[in-house]
This record gives sequence, C-alpha cells and structure tokens, in this order.
Amino acid sequence: MPRVVMKGAVEQARPQEARARRALAALARAVGTEHVVVDEDALARYGRSTGPADCRPLAVVRPATTEEVQEVVRAAARAGLPLYPIARGKNWGYGDACAPTPGQVIVDLGRMNRIVEVDPELAYCVIEPGVTQGQLCAYLQERGTGLWMDATGAGPDASLVGNTLDRGFGHTPYGDHAANTCGMEVVLADGRVLRTGFGHYAGARATSAYRYGVGPSLDGLFQQSGMGIVTRIGLWLMPAPEACVGYFIRCEDDADLEPMVDALRRLRLHEVLRSAIHVGNDLRVLSGRTRYPWERTGGVTPLPDDVRAALRREHGLGAWNVAGALYGTRECVAAARRVMRRELGRRWRIVFVDERRLGHAERLARLLERVGLGARLRRQVDLGRDVLKVLQGVPTDGALPGACWRVRGPLPPGPIDPLLANAGLLWVSPVAPASGEAAREVMDIVGPTYREHGFEPLVTFTLITPRALCCVTNVSFDRREPEEAARAAACYEALVERLMTRGFIPYRTGPLGFGKLARGSSVFWDVARQLKAALDPDGVMSPGRYDPLHQTR
Amino acid sequence: MPRVVMKGAVEQARPQEARARRALAALARAVGTEHVVVDEDALARYGRSTGPADCRPLAVVRPATTEEVQEVVRAAARAGLPLYPIARGKNWGYGDACAPTPGQVIVDLGRMNRIVEVDPELAYCVIEPGVTQGQLCAYLQERGTGLWMDATGAGPDASLVGNTLDRGFGHTPYGDHAANTCGMEVVLADGRVLRTGFGHYAGARATSAYRYGVGPSLDGLFQQSGMGIVTRIGLWLMPAPEACVGYFIRCEDDADLEPMVDALRRLRLHEVLRSAIHVGNDLRVLSGRTRYPWERTGGVTPLPDDVRAALRREHGLGAWNVAGALYGTRECVAAARRVMRRELGRRWRIVFVDERRLGHAERLARLLERVGLGARLRRQVDLGRDVLKVLQGVPTDGALPGACWRVRGPLPPGPIDPLLANAGLLWVSPVAPASGEAAREVMDIVGPTYREHGFEPLVTFTLITPRALCCVTNVSFDRREPEEAARAAACYEALVERLMTRGFIPYRTGPLGFGKLARGSSVFWDVARQLKAALDPDGVMSPGRYDPLHQTR
Repeated sequence: MPRVVMKGAVEQARPQEARARRALAALARAVGTEHVVVDEDALARYGRSTGPADCRPLAVVRPATTEEVQEVVRAAARAGLPLYPIARGKNWGYGDACAPTPGQVIVDLGRMNRIVEVDPELAYCVIEPGVTQGQLCAYLQERGTGLWMDATGAGPDASLVGNTLDRGFGHTPYGDHAANTCGMEVVLADGRVLRTGFGHYAGARATSAYRYGVGPSLDGLFQQSGMGIVTRIGLWLMPAPEACVGYFIRCEDDADLEPMVDALRRLRLHEVLRSAIHVGNDLRVLSGRTRYPWERTGGVTPLPDDVRAALRREHGLGAWNVAGALYGTRECVAAARRVMRRELGRRWRIVFVDERRLGHAERLARLLERVGLGARLRRQVDLGRDVLKVLQGVPTDGALPGACWRVRGPLPPGPIDPLLANAGLLWVSPVAPASGEAAREVMDIVGPTYREHGFEPLVTFTLITPRALCCVTNVSFDRREPEEAARAAACYEALVERLMTRGFIPYRTGPLGFGKLARGSSVFWDVARQLKAALDPDGVMSPGRYDPLHQTR
Repeated sequence: MPRVVMKGAVEQARPQEARARRALAALARAVGTEHVVVDEDALARYGRSTGPADCRPLAVVRPATTEEVQEVVRAAARAGLPLYPIARGKNWGYGDACAPTPGQVIVDLGRMNRIVEVDPELAYCVIEPGVTQGQLCAYLQERGTGLWMDATGAGPDASLVGNTLDRGFGHTPYGDHAANTCGMEVVLADGRVLRTGFGHYAGARATSAYRYGVGPSLDGLFQQSGMGIVTRIGLWLMPAPEACVGYFIRCEDDADLEPMVDALRRLRLHEVLRSAIHVGNDLRVLSGRTRYPWERTGGVTPLPDDVRAALRREHGLGAWNVAGALYGTRECVAAARRVMRRELGRRWRIVFVDERRLGHAERLARLLERVGLGARLRRQVDLGRDVLKVLQGVPTDGALPGACWRVRGPLPPGPIDPLLANAGLLWVSPVAPASGEAAREVMDIVGPTYREHGFEPLVTFTLITPRALCCVTNVSFDRREPEEAARAAACYEALVERLMTRGFIPYRTGPLGFGKLARGSSVFWDVARQLKAALDPDGVMSPGRYDPLHQTR
C-alpha cells in the first residue's frame, strides 16, 4: 500500500517535510489561510473514495482565480510539491476527489465557479471548473437564454469542466462533451497561462466559435492527462429545439442486442438520430430504481436468474432498454419519427414521449386518483418526466442510486452521496465499434467475468458517436464488506485484462486502471511523457494521472 | 531573399555540404537512387509556387512505405538535414509543394498511395498521404461501397491527408476534414512510429471508430505543424444518403449578406442544415467561369463597377450566392426543405436541384436543341450537374480556374495546373463568428484593402460549423507581371495585418503568413515550440512550418 511506504519514508524525509511546510505557508499566502485545508478530518473527507482504498492528500488548497492558481503552481514548483487539481470532486467511480497516490496537494477549484460568458446567438458559454451542472442549468433557464446544456448522470453538483476533461458524455446531441469544447485557459506547471485555439490573440472574435485556432491544436493534451490546470473552457450549448421527443424501446429478448445496435448505428450514420443513445440492460435500469434484493435472495450473490426475471417483469423492463430523443424543428422531428417507425417499428414497439403526452397522462392520473386509482400511472408519468429531463440536458440525481446497488441496509437520509452511502463503484468502460457483433462479444466477456466473481453485469451500451459504442459497466460493492471489496478489485482486474486482450480498450479509467493502460508498443505513452516533461520537467502536475509508466511510490 | 543569403553562405558551408551529400547517399540507400531527385529541372519544378517567389529544395526523396520514411528520417537526423513532407504538393496558394525556406529536403509521399482499408458498415477508410481525392472517389464508386467522401476544390489530384492536416474543408456534412479523422500513424523525428487514439494497442477494435483513445489526445499536434510525418490516417465517410438535394439562393442585394448569414446560422444551429454552406460573392463565382476581362476594361484594374455589374447580369449572379445541399432520408430531406422554405422563402427564392430535376431539364434541353434552341439550358444543366457533383463529394477541376483570374493571355491546353498557368494566388482566410454583423465587418476591411492595391475582392463565406464562418478570399495575380506580384504581396500583408488587428485570425496560412501569426502573448507559440523540441530536438522536421518564432535564414 502506497501509504505505508510513505510512512516508512518519513524519517528520511524530514528536510522534505520542512520544505513542504514552507510550501504550505506559501500556498496560504497565495490563497489565504482559510483556503488551505490541513485539518485531518477534512483531509480524510477529501480522501474518501468509492474505490477499494481511500487516498488521503497532504493538503487541499482552494484558489479563487486564475492568478491564485498561478501562485499556487509556482509555490508548489519551488517546493517540489505534487499538485492534483479537482473541479468539484464528483468523479464518481473514476477516482472521485482523489489523486492517484496519497500525499499530493489537492487543488480544489470549486471556488472558481464563474459563468464567464453566455452567448445566446452563437450558443456557447465560457465557464470555470467550479461551475456545476445544476448551476449552469439554472442560469440558462432563469435568464431565458433559450439554451440547453448536456448533463451527465453524475448529478447536479458535478462539474462540467471536470467531466469534459475526462471525456465524459451525456444524452443530447451535445453528449460528446470533449467534442463540444472550444478554447481552454490552462495554467502550466511553471505558472504561465496558456490559451488554446484563437484565445491567445487579444480580441480574437471566433475564440468560442472555432475550435482549432491556427497552428497545432493543443486542447487534446489537457484531456485525461496531468499537463496543466484548466481554469476555463468554452462549451457549446444547444439552442432549445422547437420539438424534443423522447423515445423508448423495450427489447424483450436478450438476442435483440445485435439487431438493435446495428439498426441504431444505421439511423445514426444517416443522421436520423443525432444524440447519444443509451441501451441499458435490465440490471442497469433496475439499479437506478432499487438496490440488490438482499432479502429476497437470502443474501445469495450473484443475482439468481429467477429473481432477475421476476424483477424484470415487476419493473416492466426488457432485456435491453433503449432511451434517446429526437431534437429539432417540428417538421424534422416528425420526419425522424416516421423513419424510426419505418426502420424499427416492424420489429419493436417504440414509445414516444413529449411534454404534451406527459400532460395528458398526468391529467388522466389525477382523474383516476380521485377514485383511488392511478398510482401506477402516476409513477410512470413521474418516471417519464425524469427521463425526459435528462434527455433535455437537465441534471438530476436519478442515476446516483445506481452507485449503491450492492450497499446493504438503510442509506443516509437526503440526496444520495455515494461516499456517505459507502457505495463501492469501479467503472469498466470499454469502447467497441458500433456493431451488434462487437456488442455481443463484449457481453460474452463481461457477463461470465462478473458471475465468476460473484457479481452481476450492470451494462449500458451508448452510441456516443455514429461509429462508436461505449460499454459502461460497473463493479458495484459495499465498501464496508472487505471480502466483497477484494472480490470487486479482482473482478475489475479480470474485466480490464480480458477486455483489453480482446481489443476493447477503455475510454476512461480510474486510478486503479492507469497502470493497465501500458500494453504493446510503448511509443504512445513514451511520447505523452516526453510532452509532459517538456511542460512540467519536475513532474509537479498530477503525477501518475493517466500515466501507466509512472512508478507509484 | 533567402536564396541569395544561402549562396553567400556556401563557402563557409563546405563541410556541411559534404555532410549533405553523404546524407543524400543514405537517403538513396533507404528508398532507391531513382527515388532521390537532385536533377536541377525537377527541383525547379518542385520549387514552383503560386506565391510571389519560388522556393527550391535541396533534394526530393520519395519513400514508398512507413519503414522507408523511418529510414529517411533517421538519415536526415544524422546529417541535420531539414525535411519537409508533402503529400501530393497541391496545396494551392498555401505553399503548393514548397517548404517555407529553400534548401530543405522535400519528402514527397506521393508513392504512399494505398487505400489501406474501407469499412462500408462503419463508414470509414484508412489511407496513406499519397491517396488523391480522385483515387478515393473512384475506389468508393467502383467497388460499390455505398460511401461518399468529401472533396475540396483543389481538384482530383490533390491529397486528402495533406488537406486534412492543413484543416481544409469541403462541402458535405463531412466538410470539416480535421473533425472527421480518426487515428493517425506518424513517423517522429527520431524514426519512431507513433499511433494515436487506440491505434497503439495491437488489435484494438475501435481505432477507426473512436477518435480520442485513452489518455491525452495527440492528433491535434500534427495538424498545421512540423511535429512529424503523418503516414496514415483514418477518415470517416458518409454513407450515400437516400436523398441529396442541392439548394441555391441568389441574393440580389449586397446588403442581404447580414440577414442571410444570420438565417443560415440559425438553420445550422437547429440542424436543419448540416453541411458546410458556401456564400460566394459575384466575383468569386465569376472567377470560376471566366478570367479578368482585360479587353473589356482596356487593361484597367481593379474591376470597374459598371463592368462588374454587367458581368453579374450576364452570368445571372447575385451579389451573394448561396450553395449547399440537404442529405438524408427522403422524409428528413423533405422536412428540411419545408423548414428552409418557411425560414428563407419569404425573402429569397430557393432553387432546389437533384438528379431527377436535372434529368427533366436535360431532356427538355435535348428537345429544344433539335430546333436549334436550348444552348443556355444545356449550359445551366451542365453547371448544375458540376455543382451537384461537388456537393456529393465528387472532386472536380471546377474550382481551379478561379486560381487564374488575373492571368493574361491564353492558358496552356489541358486540365488547369495553376503552376503552369503562371497563376499567382495568395489565400487570406480569416475566421469570424457566424453572424451577419461579423461578416460585414470582414467585408468592410477586405473590400477597401483590395481596391487600394488595385485588386477586387473574390470572397466566399463558408459556414464550416454552425458557429464559425470562414471567409476565404484570395489575392489573384499574374506571376509574369512583377509589378502586380509586388502589389499582391503588399495587399496580402495589409489584409492579414488589418484583419488580425480587428480580431479576425486566419484558419490557415501559406509560408508568407507564418511570421505574422505571432501577436500579443507568446505563450501559445512558445509552448508549441517546446512540444516540438521535445519530439524533434534538432529541428529536422519542417523547420518554420506554422512557427512564427522561427528565424527564416
């Protein structure tokens, strides 16, 4: 365990400690004493993880401006103190608020939460890392900007910038977040401020409209890396469409996965569908609505087939459940509906849901409730409204219960916080080409591996682009159960190993996965390290982050 | 003049020359003697430019494989010989086949012209730099792949990879070429082969389907830079749509520019329109059909207003002329047509053109021709067919005559080669936000600057994305007229200077413009140089390319 090694090294490290103390004093001068956290309880909170082990930082520093970030970086560089920036620390299941190794200084950018600019005409915003999904959404709605954002399932308190730099994705046509950023401001390891795209030209007019700038495009360097602290990004937004119609398709048969994925790919390639489409299995949808049926199974794991079948029936789920939406003018959405019916309708029943239809159902539910009926319809209406919200880019807490699937006993009251709920969560997210055959191949690896380790596969396939399918599956465990946690870690290892061996590489990973990214030719990771060394010769910035060649101490 | 300085330096450079000779011998060993060009005539041909001055290379080396490129790079590194890769050398008006400075070794990748892979299901290809637009288009058609590519106006002999690395654009929904690449193979300055995205994982399944890979995304580094020799890219293609309908809108009044750009932006933001839309002024369209009316103006320049008005009338052109197309299923295209009519039809007349309509017109023309009429209709049908081809991604020579606008006297017979035609061509391509106001501001700079220097503004505004407008305008001159060429260079300087001062930064530039890219903060270009130095410490690779801080000798 890295922490133990650190403790052993303390005696040798006395002068280093004195230096660290001086550095913390310098950090305090930069941001104010009240914004340097060294209190043990607070550090323990920052160090909590949904992974198998916590990872306590040396300190937390909370700058409020780009200038303060520059000061922090310079002070840390002088002291050789490793820095690890977080936006809101809600990177659930991918490291949460933790650095890859203990003893780093967390740079919590939560106070940098300015919405710097919103342009309703060109449909973009410029935001700082501390801006949350909920904050931007409220801002856009309250000011009547006529703009929609895209939200992930990480909840209203999660950062947009943080998710974007990790290449997260949501549900709308703007679901591929990294593809919809435009211009970054980055504080480099030596304290310089880099502006990408056209941003380094004072008064450039198209900084937030045109991504590439002129000369090499550097934005990609700051995604999934530790090359700098991003303090601002431009983000494209969707003008509220005339029409937004959600669609839901239930595939009763597991074998429908292949033809469904193939049909959806064709519709995406022909631009009938244009958003990220989610195809979740029964367990994935269930995990959002309930937890593992500990009582019903008498504590047995993995989930027995008959209980799974019963739950599927009771919740009205298919083996596979498709959710997405159509966005656009009334004419274009109506046309896309017709094409969907033509291409999918013969084989599957498609349920279209929009505000109007939900309104009708709601009025009907109200009528039925007067005579003591309508409870089920009411639940469906509420559920439909929740999902439609997500499809409209409104962040909700709806996906967070999914993190608690394997947690035993009562959950703490209030909105779900995976850390307080003791949720154990390890995402495994391999990318496949968008073909039914490839999806099946992934399932053939994932399903047995989960079962072998006493878990069951919670799986979503998302068509993030017309050609790529991201399979998002998670090892869910109760952190208070050491045996289950150990099995979870082993299951994670086995999943990543088997998937990568078969060519299904993760689109993203938590700290447990960084070391596994080195396979085959080392040129790519060598080059990434050379580039990082050019910008951060002392390795002060996020050491170990997405660096499989990094020796964790 | 750089070349003069070089000659002066020759005496000092004797040992260097001997080293260069040894290096050329090593290059010959790597690729075969017949593929190292040192013959003076051939070098002069490679050194021809559409810019004001030619730029002769030291030698040309023509590797056939990635391995040969590695050998070439290693040999050059040993000798400190600067290398400049070209794909097909058709980078018209942006440097053509020339390095930024004389005396570099051109690495002509024309022999690397393999179409490595075409996947009809996932709609992509993997190609080498020597693959031409015409070659890929023919391949896709002849094999019945059901895939369309996107073509630029550079003609059938131009390279797709070269254009993509320079961030060129075309006309279809895949018009933003850089946005549709997926995975690169790059030979670095030390001879290592880097594969980006998932490509460095042997057997990775989604290499050509998912762009980012895992960890930092490095592709942007190899666009508009000299960081390596790209020997292979993945390129996404469009599945042939059920329907493709071209639309043409003529704006009679110059003042229509603002409302038209604003209306098109809205239609693009709402995804009614999804391709690169071109809005050309009368002169831009004219330059594709005819040359400067030297006789009619009695040699006077710039073009007198009355002649311009007459030409506009005779050619049936508007002050602004919009061309684009709708692509998709029959239902979706019909819906988009209705929305276009609703949003634009009250103010402007939209002409929709598809194969069916062209077929009708052609039959009518044939009938009329029998009675000695129909010549005009025939011309229109031919023109319509040419433009529709371009809108369908079929490369044509149709835009090349535009390069010859100011050339006097007869052109050489055969297909147009701007170099043989003595065409002088300097593109100025500022990016603006997609708003009518910004477009007008650009015109208010461009128009007077051209006239001041005795030229007239040939202008296209392209909505390359929903938010960005690229203004493509060119100083056109006759290279045999030294006075005009000098004025052209001065005009270029003034245009770039005035546009950049007002915040309109070019999306791309030729060698004349590299030095002008340094303005304001130097951090961006300093960082670009640091990254390049990390990969190419001896500066062997494309010295000076997109490097405003490079001292041209």
